[in-house]
This record gives sequence, structure tokens and C-alpha cells, in this order.
Amino acid sequence: MTRKITGLRQLGHEVPVPASPVDAQLERVPNPHADTAYVARFTAPEFTCLCPVTGQPDFAHFVVDYAPREWLLESKSFKLFLSSFRNAAAFHEDATLTIGKRIVQIIEPSWLRIGGYWFPRGGIPIDVFWQHGTPPEGVWIPDQGVAPYRGRG
Amino acid sequence: MTRKITGLRQLGHEVPVPASPVDAQLERVPNPHADTAYVARFTAPEFTCLCPVTGQPDFAHFVVDYAPREWLLESKSFKLFLSSFRNAAAFHEDATLTIGKRIVQIIEPSWLRIGGYWFPRGGIPIDVFWQHGTPPEGVWIPDQGVAPYRGRG
Amino acid sequence: MTRKITGLRQLGHEVPVPASPVDAQLERVPNPHADTAYVARFTAPEFTCLCPVTGQPDFAHFVVDYAPREWLLESKSFKLFLSSFRNAAAFHEDATLTIGKRIVQIIEPSWLRIGGYWFPRGGIPIDVFWQHGTPPEGVWIPDQGVAPYRGRG
Amino acid sequence: MTRKITGLRQLGHEVPVPASPVDAQLERVPNPHADTAYVARFTAPEFTCLCPVTGQPDFAHFVVDYAPREWLLESKSFKLFLSSFRNAAAFHEDATLTIGKRIVQIIEPSWLRIGGYWFPRGGIPIDVFWQHGTPPEGVWIPDQGVAPYRGRG
Amino acid sequence: MTRKITGLRQLGHEVPVPASPVDAQLERVPNPHADTAYVARFTAPEFTCLCPVTGQPDFAHFVVDYAPREWLLESKSFKLFLSSFRNAAAFHEDATLTIGKRIVQIIEPSWLRIGGYWFPRGGIPIDVFWQHGTPPEGVWIPDQGVAPYRGRG
Amino acid sequence: MTRKITGLRQLGHEVPVPASPVDAQLERVPNPHADTAYVARFTAPEFTCLCPVTGQPDFAHFVVDYAPREWLLESKSFKLFLSSFRNAAAFHEDATLTIGKRIVQIIEPSWLRIGGYWFPRGGIPIDVFWQHGTPPEGVWIPDQGVAPYRGRG
Amino acid sequence: MTRKITGLRQLGHEVPVPASPVDAQLERVPNPHADTAYVARFTAPEFTCLCPVTGQPDFAHFVVDYAPREWLLESKSFKLFLSSFRNAAAFHEDATLTIGKRIVQIIEPSWLRIGGYWFPRGGIPIDVFWQHGTPPEGVWIPDQGVAPYRGRG
Amino acid sequence: MTRKITGLRQLGHEVPVPASPVDAQLERVPNPHADTAYVARFTAPEFTCLCPVTGQPDFAHFVVDYAPREWLLESKSFKLFLSSFRNAAAFHEDATLTIGKRIVQIIEPSWLRIGGYWFPRGGIPIDVFWQHGTPPEGVWIPDQGVAPYRGRG
Amino acid sequence: MTRKITGLRQLGHEVPVPASPVDAQLERVPNPHADTAYVARFTAPEFTCLCPVTGQPDFAHFVVDYAPREWLLESKSFKLFLSSFRNAAAFHEDATLTIGKRIVQIIEPSWLRIGGYWFPRGGIPIDVFWQHGTPPEGVWIPDQGVAPYRGRG
Amino acid sequence: MTRKITGLRQLGHEVPVPASPVDAQLERVPNPHADTAYVARFTAPEFTCLCPVTGQPDFAHFVVDYAPREWLLESKSFKLFLSSFRNAAAFHEDATLTIGKRIVQIIEPSWLRIGGYWFPRGGIPIDVFWQHGTPPEGVWIPDQGVAPYRGRG
Ligand SMILES: [Ca+2]
Ligand SMILES: [Ca+2]
Ligand SMILES: [Ca+2]
Ligand SMILES: [Ca+2]
Ligand SMILES: [Ca+2]
Ligand SMILES: [Ca+2]
Ligand SMILES: [Ca+2]
Ligand SMILES: [Ca+2]
Ligand SMILES: [Ca+2]
Ligand SMILES: [Ca+2]
Ligand SMILES: [Ca+2]
Ligand SMILES: [Ca+2]
Ligand SMILES: [Ca+2]
Ligand SMILES: [Ca+2]
Ligand SMILES: [Ca+2]
Ligand SMILES: [Ca+2]
Repeated sequence: MTRKITGLRQLGHEVPVPASPVDAQLERVPNPHADTAYVARFTAPEFTCLCPVTGQPDFAHFVVDYAPREWLLESKSFKLFLSSFRNAAAFHEDATLTIGKRIVQIIEPSWLRIGGYWFPRGGIPIDVFWQHGTPPEGVWIPDQGVAPYRGRG
Repeated sequence: MTRKITGLRQLGHEVPVPASPVDAQLERVPNPHADTAYVARFTAPEFTCLCPVTGQPDFAHFVVDYAPREWLLESKSFKLFLSSFRNAAAFHEDATLTIGKRIVQIIEPSWLRIGGYWFPRGGIPIDVFWQHGTPPEGVWIPDQGVAPYRGRG
Repeated sequence: MTRKITGLRQLGHEVPVPASPVDAQLERVPNPHADTAYVARFTAPEFTCLCPVTGQPDFAHFVVDYAPREWLLESKSFKLFLSSFRNAAAFHEDATLTIGKRIVQIIEPSWLRIGGYWFPRGGIPIDVFWQHGTPPEGVWIPDQGVAPYRGRG
Repeated sequence: MTRKITGLRQLGHEVPVPASPVDAQLERVPNPHADTAYVARFTAPEFTCLCPVTGQPDFAHFVVDYAPREWLLESKSFKLFLSSFRNAAAFHEDATLTIGKRIVQIIEPSWLRIGGYWFPRGGIPIDVFWQHGTPPEGVWIPDQGVAPYRGRG
Repeated sequence: MTRKITGLRQLGHEVPVPASPVDAQLERVPNPHADTAYVARFTAPEFTCLCPVTGQPDFAHFVVDYAPREWLLESKSFKLFLSSFRNAAAFHEDATLTIGKRIVQIIEPSWLRIGGYWFPRGGIPIDVFWQHGTPPEGVWIPDQGVAPYRGRG
Repeated sequence: MTRKITGLRQLGHEVPVPASPVDAQLERVPNPHADTAYVARFTAPEFTCLCPVTGQPDFAHFVVDYAPREWLLESKSFKLFLSSFRNAAAFHEDATLTIGKRIVQIIEPSWLRIGGYWFPRGGIPIDVFWQHGTPPEGVWIPDQGVAPYRGRG
Repeated sequence: MTRKITGLRQLGHEVPVPASPVDAQLERVPNPHADTAYVARFTAPEFTCLCPVTGQPDFAHFVVDYAPREWLLESKSFKLFLSSFRNAAAFHEDATLTIGKRIVQIIEPSWLRIGGYWFPRGGIPIDVFWQHGTPPEGVWIPDQGVAPYRGRG
Repeated sequence: MTRKITGLRQLGHEVPVPASPVDAQLERVPNPHADTAYVARFTAPEFTCLCPVTGQPDFAHFVVDYAPREWLLESKSFKLFLSSFRNAAAFHEDATLTIGKRIVQIIEPSWLRIGGYWFPRGGIPIDVFWQHGTPPEGVWIPDQGVAPYRGRG
Repeated sequence: MTRKITGLRQLGHEVPVPASPVDAQLERVPNPHADTAYVARFTAPEFTCLCPVTGQPDFAHFVVDYAPREWLLESKSFKLFLSSFRNAAAFHEDATLTIGKRIVQIIEPSWLRIGGYWFPRGGIPIDVFWQHGTPPEGVWIPDQGVAPYRGRG
Repeated sequence: MTRKITGLRQLGHEVPVPASPVDAQLERVPNPHADTAYVARFTAPEFTCLCPVTGQPDFAHFVVDYAPREWLLESKSFKLFLSSFRNAAAFHEDATLTIGKRIVQIIEPSWLRIGGYWFPRGGIPIDVFWQHGTPPEGVWIPDQGVAPYRGRG
């Protein structure tokens, strides 16, 4: 199975949180099953950025699904990338698509989708759903199944 | 069983929503088991009033439990009483206790409690829990079991 | 274990629904563990009666817990008793206590409680909780755990 | 990421609740990813209007999904628009479609759907489901997953 | 929005429960969005009829979805229609389809489906699923999502 | 509605549990809506048979969906048929398909499917899913929605 | 930790299901922490016996909690004991207490309780709750938390 | 009801996130029911601070319950106080008690408790539960009911 | 039904856990319904292997669905195969696909899919979804329905 | 807040999994609120050991609650301690109490409890509940709320 991986700059090293999304380095590892169509899902319930209008913190829960080609997303660099939004300002729709597009750029998957489930502001939460590319024929993609928001009661 | 009830001014009549809580008339009916200690629970997921600072609407879900003595709370008058807050301004803590105290005033129960479960403002919901009087010995009081707020994800 | 039971008029016979609660016959069987303190719970999600004011049907879900002495409640007669309310008129509080008191009368338990969970009228469901007698020392009584009403969303 | 937004009349200002849906001003902001097909979901558990027959308040929980073209729905103006129904009279089916059509008018999405989940009247809740336009090819649309109504028990 | 409705014989009037489904009058109101394809869902957790073999009461939970053309189903007449089965005898499959077909007859929708979720008999509940007509192209139909039966534990 | 049914040998009679599946008699009743495409679902959480290797009891939860043609499955005979496996030995896959095929044989539906949800052995539960025939065009088939197994925690 | 256990006649041996509860042999193992007050819980969702009146199979889900003294209940013998009820006839109340008392007899705990959660008959499930002895001071006993029965919907 | 509140420095003003917990100003408002024993609950699912060892972000969900005396916790200042931990370093146990103690300091309640539900590190989440003071006699305190962590499956 | 199976080396024998996946022997049994298209699902909540980078244990929950041709997967050998990963090192994506491919190799199904639901590392769980082959026409495949990860609160 | 911690041998270092529980080193850190009564909860869904009779792997989910005195349990050393059972043999009751007692030994809390929720063997899961010491007066201890086992369906 798993081959030896070398050259990663973050996994296995103590690395500080990048100062901004621009400073963050998403990393990738070779896909050991690059000849096989499948899907990997990352669930990231720990995300925060700042509101571009008020400067107040916003929070979100993200789920990313992708069908890899040559590369897999390296998990620790993804965590640090998400952490790098801590002091960045972005609208919900924008932050969600920006995250999705950065991952696409680094791992060039056949297909990727991201669901951004944002905490309510003014009593109304916003969810953002984006996908990119075409799933390889016959690949299996379960729905993300995140519970709908229900207020109280 | 149930005896004939007369003299109600709202139940069985088409009645407009009272203009304010002061205008609303809570009514009561005789307790057919006044010699017996028991608890009645009213669950009211439809409530709205106005924020005294911003004038924006607030929403809440209420659960009222009480142990009656001579009187039962008449359900339609209670619904109209709750509706009368539609244009009233009140902080969460205040509205919850005001509702509880008005019911106490009209039906004079041995014991009453009210849980006010308010929709989030600024990402933080407030719940208010008040009880008054002492439950009759040996009365059975299940907990209200309202689901906790969980944000997203 | 179980001893032979004779003399029941409903269990094992095809019996029509009684015309009213007065016509219904609750039956009892000897408690094979009459020297032992324990609790039996009956859950009855099928109940309907009529509103004494409008004549419209009401629906309820009942849970009855009791600690038997000499007698157990015979289950089929209980089902028929509940069915006999089909054409009877009663307020929620009254119907619930009437059912509880009839069972107490026939089986004379050390302790009994009944939870009546009524379907909403005017957007507000009423629950009624009654208990009678004292649980034998050391008896174990789980809560009924019926889900709270939550409206929509 | 997020560009500077100017010219909004409600976001960042203290604005009273509009007197009626006609008085409310839905606003829009430029879509920073207008060349990208995606979906935004707004969940609004705080809604109330009046019954056109009895004048009594009705309550609903709304979920709106849309695929933007040039414009995004501005969230605060949407909240105020919903609040403007507070003193308006409308049947469930009508209010739900009216809300959906107003949003279509202001943001001209490729596709929009609205689910209106109304609190029960007469023991029977009504849900209304409408969609308009055609989702862009390959866009991802999770179901709304609102819990079905279950009465009691 | 909502136009004035006249001529209804049940809504806004005190009406007794019809003696049988044949005596019940389903009513309809004009569809204010007759040029628009959408779906309305009625959820009716209060239903009871009689077993044609034993005469014992049966209970069911119904969910009806339909895409209206010229007419909407009037909710109070629907409630009374369901109540009219109280003394009628019908097998589960038959009652479910009979209800569905009566609604089709009165409102002539483009499409209608009914799910009948019956309480268990002999430990085995039966569900009945029927649909009629073809949904208008592009209409949105969420699934009914009723929880499966699970016995105990 | 429902026509008089005669000639059933089990429904309305006290019938012992058949000694084996071969001895059991599945019965059918005429489909009162044979000209209509619809689906009936039977949920049977009470099933047990024996492991052909060890002789130990196995347990399962079954859900059967079918689209009837001329005949409906008679519910009491189905219950007795399931009970007849009590002393029979069968692997999970085999018992599930055998049950499905016996029902097909007796009621000749256009389409039938059976989900067998078996209790875990060695920490691993097996589910078996089979369908036969083709659903009539336009028939509505909700998913069975049985909760996945999750071990502990 | 765990000491070597010898002399068990069922664990580690292939053993047929006992013909009746009388034939079953509950076994015990030494409690390795006999000087410590604690609680062990066994959850047994696989149980079936026969109705003493009709001979039809009944099903139940059991949860047993106990505070051991010198002995622990051996798990495989418990499983076989439960299986031995397969052809035995017993009322729900009786079977539940009989199981509890047999365990008490063999392991002589300071305290034991058993919850029997029976599948519905006539639409009404019965639960039986029994406890025996006194929990050692300071022992911790979580509730069993079995979901209440809810019929359909 | 609600009296006019003046002198707040944060509510109704646009206020930046404080640079640290030391810089944050918790504010209080007069308790309009200071002669009445009751409980207010704040649920705060949006919290993040930094790990004192690695500098990585930590996340938590907080629930605070208190019984007020003369003062209520002002909600917006509480939100800003929580936000001020964004760049602070603290162990889970410490952050939770620090938050609780600061609230106690400013509003001097009769009783307060805080539950800190931290996201898992190394697969193991830590919860911290603290209470201070004594609930006024007869006050009602529902449990916080936060779902336990369950890993996957 | 079930034919006699002979020649299995693990089922019915006491077999130690294989030292590695290479040492494990997946076994198969003849498919008694080889002429019938259906699906079998194995749910395995007990899995652990080692992280190839840190040597720390990883945990996962697996669900495998397949449509058999001539052979069924023998359940005990599957359990032992999974156990053989206990001391093996593998990335999540790799372990999941390796398990799926080994099963394909031994039972040559028409179609197989595996969902690997891994416990979170760094706060982010990874799921891996793979399928192979084409489901036989008309086969029924329910979704796996594993609950999404939600962090805390 | 949090003071500098020095002298830990595992936190902040890459440490291999200890070969056995005897080799593992539980570590402690000073309690920064040692003058305050509170409770910390650790939830550990990743645990496996070996069956002392068959050598097969067992799995469990643990929840540990304690009220600290001078010391807190260091989380990474606890994770490694749990991992050290990977090749150890122990009965469920024994492993659970052994873990609890080792923690008591190292951190000397005023009170500790451990719930061990074991995966089912022979269809029957065992839970083990132990507590030690006396909670400080007035400390708050929520229940662990782990979902009961329910088999299938
Ligand atoms: Ca909010
Ligand atoms: Ca799905
Ligand atoms: Ca409770
Ligand atoms: Ca709600
Ligand atoms: Ca879905
Ligand atoms: Ca129900
Ligand atoms: Ca769906
Ligand atoms: Ca579905
Ligand atoms: Ca688990
Ligand atoms: Ca039944
Ligand atoms: Ca409890
Ligand atoms: Ca509770
Ligand atoms: Ca599905
Ligand atoms: Ca959360
Ligand atoms: Ca609790
Ligand atoms: Ca079950």
C-alpha cells in the first residue's frame, strides 16, 4: 500500500498559522490510486473569518468533496489554509468559492464541490454550494447531509 | 365528564387580535378536577414581539407548565394574549416573566413555570426559565426537553 | 412462569367497540409477581374523542405507568376502553384524568401516572400530567421521554 | 477577494421595518463570481403574516435557494422584506410565491426555488414548493431537508 | 396579493363533521398563481376509520402533495372530509386511494400524490403510496421524509 | 369503497404458527384499485430464524415494497409466513430473497423489492436489498430510510 | 489485569440453544474488582417468546443493569438463556421479572434492574421496569434512554 | 414592561472586536425582575482562541446559565468579550473558567454555571463544567442537553 | 433454501487475527441466488490501522455494498481481514481502496462500492467513496446514510 | 490566564505508542483553578484491546468525568495510554476499571467516573459505569448522554 512521502513542508513539522490566505501553502501528495475514479470528502467544522463590513467574526462549517486525478489534498496544509482566513475579510459567497478554487488550483481534480454552511446573521444563515468540473463517469457521490438550520423550538 | 362552560367571551367567538398585552383578556375555566394535583403544559411555538432598542421583530418559542387550583387557563384567550405582543416592545427576560406573571394572576395556580426559548441575535440565543409557587406534593413534572441551539454543522 | 388465565370477557373474544366510556369494561388479571414492586408502562398512540364545544374530533397520545398490587391491567380491555371515547366529548384535562382514574378504580395500583399528549389546537398543544398514589419504595420509574412539540422548521 | 460595496441603503444603517411588502426595498450586491455557476441558500425561520379571512397571525419557516447571475440577494434587505409581511394578509400559497417572485424580480437569478413551511392550522400544516428558471448545467443543489410535521407522540 | 374569496360553505362557518365520506363536500378556491407550476403539501396526522373485518378503529398519518391548475384545495373542507371517515370501514390501500381520488376529482390538479402511513396491526404497519398525473415540467417535489417504523429499542 | 372479502383462511380465524416456511400459506385479496399504479409497503420488525452453521437464532428487520396488479398481500398470512421461519435455517442473503420470491409467486406484482436489515454477527451487520420486475411508469417509491448501523458511541 | 478464567461450560464451546429457560444454565465469572462499587449494563435487542393465550410469537428489547458483588454475569450464557425463551410462553410482565430474578439468583448482585421494552400488540406496547436490592452508596447509574414508542408519522 | 436603558457603550454602537479579553468590557443592564428568582441561558456556538503550546486555533461551543440579582448580562458586550479571545492563548479548562469568572465579576449573580464544549484534539474532545454560587431556592434549571461527541459512524 | 457449505477454513473454527493484510485470507461462499441481481451490504464499525507518518493509530467505520455474481463474501473472513490492518500503516484513501479491491478480487462481483468514514485528525475527518463495476440493470441500491461529522454543539 | 507548562515528556514531542498499559506514562499538569470545584470530561471514541479468551479485537467508546484537585489530566498522554491497550488482553469490566483507576492514581481527583461503552459481542453490548470519590459539594455534573444500543430497524 501507501508509498513513502517526502518533501512536505508542513506535515510532520510544527508550522505557525499563515498570516493570510495568500500566505498559506496548500500542499498535495501523489494519488496512490490515480488510475481509479473515487471521491474524498473533507469535513471542516472549524472556520472563522471577518465580516468585510463590520469587522466582526463570522463562522462556518465546510464540506469539500473531490474526485482526484494525479494529486490528493494534503490534510494538514488544508487545515492551515483554513486557519489563514482568521484575519481575512470576505462575504460568505466569496469565501466559499475562494476556498474551492484554491483547492482546484493546487490538486487539479476532475471534479470538486464545496458546501459552506454559515452561522446565522440577522437570524438568517446562508449556505453556499459550488461544484467545478465533471465527476468521472460512474463515480459515487453521497450527499453531504448537513442538518438544516431550524432556529429554536 | 366535562361540564357545560358558559360566559367565555373569546372561545367560540370570532375575536380580533388585541392591540397590546394590556388590552388582552386572559380567561379561565373551572378546573373539573380541582381536588386533584396535576400539571398542564401549553406549548406555543408562535410568538413575536419587538426589540425595545431597534424596533426589529424578535421571535420566541414558549412552554408553560402549571398545577391548577380552581381554574384552568382557557386556551384561545392564551393564544390571543400571546398574539397581543405583536406590536409590543420588550427584552427577552422581561417578556418571558411578564407572560408568566399574567397567567399566575388570572388562574392562581399552586405552581407555574415558563420557559422562553428565543431565536438568536448576534449569533447567541437567550433562554429564560422562571417558576413560581411550589408544586403540590407528589405532582409529576416532566422536563420540557426543548432541543439546545447548535448553530450550524 | 405465567399461570393460566380464565374468565376474561374480551381477550380472546371478538368484541365490538363499546358505545361510550361508561359502557366499556376495563378488566384485570392477577399479578403473577404481586409480592414484587415494579412498573408497567402502556403506550397508546391511537386515541380520539370529540371537542365538547365544537364537536370536532380531538386526538391524543397517552402513556400510562403504574406499580401494580394484586392486579394487572388487561391490555385488550384497555384498548377497547380507549376506543370507547370515539364518540364522547371531553376537554383535554378532563379526558386525561378520567382515563387515569378509571384504571386506578379497576386495578387499585400503589401508584399510577398518565401523560396525555394532545395534538395542537390553535397552534398550541396541551399536555396533561397526573399521578396518583405513592410509588413503592425503591421502584424504578424512567421518564416518558415523549418528544416536545416544535411547530415547523 | 471581496470588493468594496457602496450604495446600499439598509445594510450598515438603522432601518425601521417597512410598513408593507410594497414598501420594502429588496437590495442586491454584485456577484463577485458572476462567471461561476453556484447556489446560495437563505434559511429564514422568523416569518409571520395575517390570515386574510380571520386576521389571526400565521407563522412560517422559509428556505430560499438560488443560482445567481449578476447579482446576489443582500441579506439585511431580505430580512426587512420578510418583516414587512407582519401586517399583511395572505394565503399560504400566495405569500410563498409572492416572496419568491419579488426576489426573482430584483436579482434575476438563472434559477430560484422557495420552500414555505407553514405552522399547522386545524391540525394540518401546508408546505408550498416553487421553483423558477432552470438551474445552470452542472450546478449542485442539495435538498432542503426540513423535518416533516408529525403531530404528537 | 390574496384576492377576496366568497361562496365557501365551510370555511368561516361552524360545520358539523359529515356523517360519511359520501356526505363530505371537498371545496376549492381559485389558484392565485394558476399560471405558475408549484406544489402544495398537506400533512394530516389526525385520521381514523374502521376496519371492515373487525370494526376496530384504524389510525393513519397522511401526506398529500399536488401541483394545482385552476384550483387549490380548501383546507377546512379537507379536514372535514378526513373526519368523515370516522365511522366508515375501509382497508388501508382502499382508504388511501379513495382520499387521493376524491381530491383529484374536485381540484383537477396536473399531478397529485398521497402517502398513507398506517399504524401497525399484528406488529406490521402498511404504507400506501399513490400518485396521479404528471408533474409539470420543472416543478420541485421534495420527498415526504416520514420516519420509518422501527418497533422497539 | 372496500368490498366484502370472503374465503380467507387465516384472517379472522385463530391460526397457529406454521411449522416451516413450506407449511405457511401466503394469501391474497383482490386489489380494489387494480387499474391504478401504486405501491404498498409492509414493515416487519419481528423476524427470527436460525443460523445454518451454528443453529443460533438470527434476527432481522424487513421492509417490503410492491406495486400490485390483481392482488394485494393479505397481512395476517404474511405475518404467519414470517413467523414460520422461527425454526428454519438460512443464510441472511438466502432468507431475504426467499421471502421476496414467495410473495412474488402469490401476488404476481408488477414490481416488488425487499430490504432485509440483519442484526450484527461478529460486529458486522449484513443488509440485503433485492427488487424484481419493473415499477409501473410513473409510480412513486420513497426510499426505506432505515437507520444505518453505528456500533456504539 | 484480567485473570485466567477456567471451568466455563459455554464460553469457548459450541453450545446448542437450551430447550427452555429451565434447561438454560446462566454462568458467572469472578468479579476482578469485587471491592469496587460499579455497574454493568447488558443490552439485548434480540428476544422472542410465545404468547400464552394465542401461541403467537412476541418480541422484546431488554436492558439489564446491575452492581456486582462477587460475580459477573457471563455474557454467552446470558445470550443462550435469552434464546431459551424461544419456545416458552409468558406474559410480558412475567417474562421480564423471571429473567431479572434468574440473574439475581446466579450472580447475587447488590442491585439489579431490568427494562423490558415489548413490541406493540393491538397498537399498544408494554414496557416493564423492575429493580431489586439497593445500589451501593455512591454508585453511578445512567438512565437506559430507550426511545419511546411513537406509532407513525 | 421593559424600561428605557441608557449608558450602554456597545449596544446600539458599532464597536470593533476588543484586542484581548483584558480589553473587553462586559456590560450589564438592570434586572427588571430583580425581586424574582429565575434563570437566563446564553448559548454561544461561535468561539475560538489559540493553543498556548502550538499556537493553533481551538474552537468551542459555550452555554452559560445564571440566576440574576440586580443585573443582567448585556448580550452584545458578551458577544464582543467572547470575540476578544480570538488572539488569546488558553488551555480549555482555563478559558472556560476565566469566562465564567468574568461574568460573575460584572453581574454578581446568585448563581452561574458554564459548560464549555471543545472541539476534539487528538480525537478526544474535552468538556468543562463549572458552577458558582447557590441557585436561589426553588429556581428551575433545565439541563444543557448538548449532544455527546460520537466520532464517526 | 440454504445449501450445506463445506471447505471454509475460518468460519466455525477458532482462528487468530492475521498478522497483516497480506496474510489474511478472504473467503467466499457460493451465491445461492446467482441468477438474481441483488445487493448485500456489510457495515463494519470496528477498524483500526496505523498512520504511515506518525505511527499513531487511526480509526474508521466502513460500509461495503456489492452485487454478487457467483460468490458471496464470507463474513467471518471479512472480519479477520479487517482486523489484519491493526498493525499495518496506510493513508486513509489508500486503505479504503485497498480493502475494496481485495474484496473485488476474491468475489468478482458485478459491482461493489465502499465508503470509508475516518475519525477526525486535526479536527477534519476524511471520507473516501469508491465504486467499481456497473450495477446490474434494475438493481436497488439504498444510500449508506452515515451521519455527517459535526464537531461540537 | 494559562501559565507556562514545562517538563512534559510527551506533549509537544513525537512519541511512539507505548507497548502496553504498564509502559504508558500518564502525565498531569497543574490545575490553574485548583481552588475551584469544577468538572472536566474527556470523550474517547477510539479504543481497542484484545479479548483474553479468543484474542480477537474488542472496541469501546469511553467517557471520563472528573473533578480535579491539584492536577489536570494531560490530554496527549491520555491518548497514548489508551493506545497502549492495543495489544493488551482484558475483559470489558476490567479494562474499564483499570483505566479509571490509573487516572485516579496520577491526578488524585476529588471525584472521577468512567463510562465504557463496548461494541456488541454475540449481539449484546456491555456498558460499564464506575465512579470513585465524592464530587465536591455543589459541583455540576451533566449526564454522559451516550445513545443506547438499538440493534437494527
Ligand atoms: Ca443571529
Ligand atoms: Ca441521500
Ligand atoms: Ca428527563
Ligand atoms: Ca421552529
Ligand atoms: Ca438528500
Ligand atoms: Ca404520531
Ligand atoms: Ca431527500
Ligand atoms: Ca429520500
Ligand atoms: Ca461510533
Ligand atoms: Ca400492533
Ligand atoms: Ca434522563
Ligand atoms: Ca433532562
Ligand atoms: Ca436516500
Ligand atoms: Ca456546531
Ligand atoms: Ca439528562
Ligand atoms: Ca429494533
